[in-house]
Amino acid sequence: MYRPEIKVLDCTIRDGGLINDHLFEDHFVRAVYQACSLAGVDYVELGYQASKKFFSPDKYGKWKFCDEDHVKKAIEGIKSKTKLSTMVDIGRVELDQVMPKKKSVIDLIRVACYIKDVDKAIDMVKHFHDKGYETTVNIMAISTALQPDIEEGLAELAESPVNAVYVVDSFGSLFSEQIHFLVKLYLQYLQPKGIEVGIHAHNNQQLGFANTIEAIRKGANYLDATIFGIGRAAGNCPLELLLAFLKNPKFDLEPILEVIEKEFLPLREQMEWGYIIPHMITGILNQHPRAAIALREGPDKDKYAEFYHKLVHGD
Amino acid sequence: MYRPEIKVLDCTIRDGGLINDHLFEDHFVRAVYQACSLAGVDYVELGYQASKKFFSPDKYGKWKFCDEDHVKKAIEGIKSKTKLSTMVDIGRVELDQVMPKKKSVIDLIRVACYIKDVDKAIDMVKHFHDKGYETTVNIMAISTALQPDIEEGLAELAESPVNAVYVVDSFGSLFSEQIHFLVKLYLQYLQPKGIEVGIHAHNNQQLGFANTIEAIRKGANYLDATIFGIGRAAGNCPLELLLAFLKNPKFDLEPILEVIEKEFLPLREQMEWGYIIPHMITGILNQHPRAAIALREGPDKDKYAEFYHKLVHGD
Repeated sequence: MYRPEIKVLDCTIRDGGLINDHLFEDHFVRAVYQACSLAGVDYVELGYQASKKFFSPDKYGKWKFCDEDHVKKAIEGIKSKTKLSTMVDIGRVELDQVMPKKKSVIDLIRVACYIKDVDKAIDMVKHFHDKGYETTVNIMAISTALQPDIEEGLAELAESPVNAVYVVDSFGSLFSEQIHFLVKLYLQYLQPKGIEVGIHAHNNQQLGFANTIEAIRKGANYLDATIFGIGRAAGNCPLELLLAFLKNPKFDLEPILEVIEKEFLPLREQMEWGYIIPHMITGILNQHPRAAIALREGPDKDKYAEFYHKLVHGD
Repeated sequence: MYRPEIKVLDCTIRDGGLINDHLFEDHFVRAVYQACSLAGVDYVELGYQASKKFFSPDKYGKWKFCDEDHVKKAIEGIKSKTKLSTMVDIGRVELDQVMPKKKSVIDLIRVACYIKDVDKAIDMVKHFHDKGYETTVNIMAISTALQPDIEEGLAELAESPVNAVYVVDSFGSLFSEQIHFLVKLYLQYLQPKGIEVGIHAHNNQQLGFANTIEAIRKGANYLDATIFGIGRAAGNCPLELLLAFLKNPKFDLEPILEVIEKEFLPLREQMEWGYIIPHMITGILNQHPRAAIALREGPDKDKYAEFYHKLVHGD
């Protein structure tokens, strides 16, 4: 039987925005929000609440900033029970620019951090919690963190008002046994406090969906996915696979298939993501995707063997 | 530590041949065999030993038949420890046309069958075994077989001279728990007789690699994969991911990356395989890929929502 506690969060616009500097047009954002609403997705994440002090609106699209007016306009008139989410990075947000929940259409703010910055993340969680928001902490690059550091961070998070803490496989390098280990470790600290565990899996080794299932099997209830697997580099767990897997009858696959057909096939002609060998290579080597992203922008984008050789043996 | 018993079988040319009626040119076959040889792959499967009584050489390429002369010519001069394999289908081969092993460069003959034809497969296994070949039985469409039938088949196979019996997820519909169940069930019957278990996973749900790993974890030692995941419809477990995962130092990833770059990128422009939504749809519905393959050949190839609706609700 299905677990009613499971929440699906579509981060198509937010993670996909990392490919195109968050320059999605309103009609595309509306199509995604509409499809997710019809499909019964619990949350849609639109972008970052980054500060314009640190990032220029000349370079970045509006989903880097998620101004209240822009968000409202994008969802206007769409009948939906789907909640809205934004993400914030440590040190890239001005807290006093985030308005109280009662004045905002945003429901959930997710704080992304590395394990070393959990203290800072908790401060931000408290701030957003006090303003009335739901919150999560998404601990990135968990595949390179040491167990004592993870446990220390989890112990602190367990004392915070956070709603969920995510296992984030930023490099797409984890296997099922490691997912099992991490989800169980997270639950050990968080479950007694009623804090949920989430999973955000990248697809470098074609394990995004598989690892999401393994996290579910061990008790993760917050599940990130993106339509057609869009996202930086190799992309994410595909929402269409996840919805087909989940047994809760509230989910409907058809609106997602329809938006793939209408919006994502043309988009895929203009933007690159997915199982592309340089991204597979950083995944198997448990490395940040930046080297592969740089390679794909240059003339050697398909020199796979040479790229691998350099990463393994040096120049 | 790695398991030395593990054998990797590359079926790029055989399963890829299902896309193009086995019309691969010699230079491509040589490039694959060369790369697999350098990479330390244990077996390369070139095609079928189908009878020309049933299939016309006017329509099908030579890898549908694998005449000894053609095989010899394709591998001539390539230094290799990699063994050669062919596949046969029940009722599509003339047994007396298969020459004794001592006159052939083929090492392994794999008999593909549905669960109902295990008796016929065993007869063929005995025949090829007596001629001096290694043999496997690949039980297709196992996701639609009933457990008592599987157990009856395994009990019979356990008494045969077969070297390995495969779990074949023809529709790419199985999840990790089902893979665990099947591999354990196979081993229960076969392990006491020294018969190995194999896994051949399709990628309709992006679980080809994940399910291969899960089969390994439960004891499968014969692993099928294809370069760049090539294969009919959604394709197969990608060899490059599998080799990167396996710890045996005899495997080398670089020659595979090189042949992807040189041969498979141009091929992918001419032939279609991989994570394409209609193939995902037949996978989640546990159906043969034929409806999706037909759709992809027609004008409605990207009408995903309609295709899904028809398969679920009828016309």
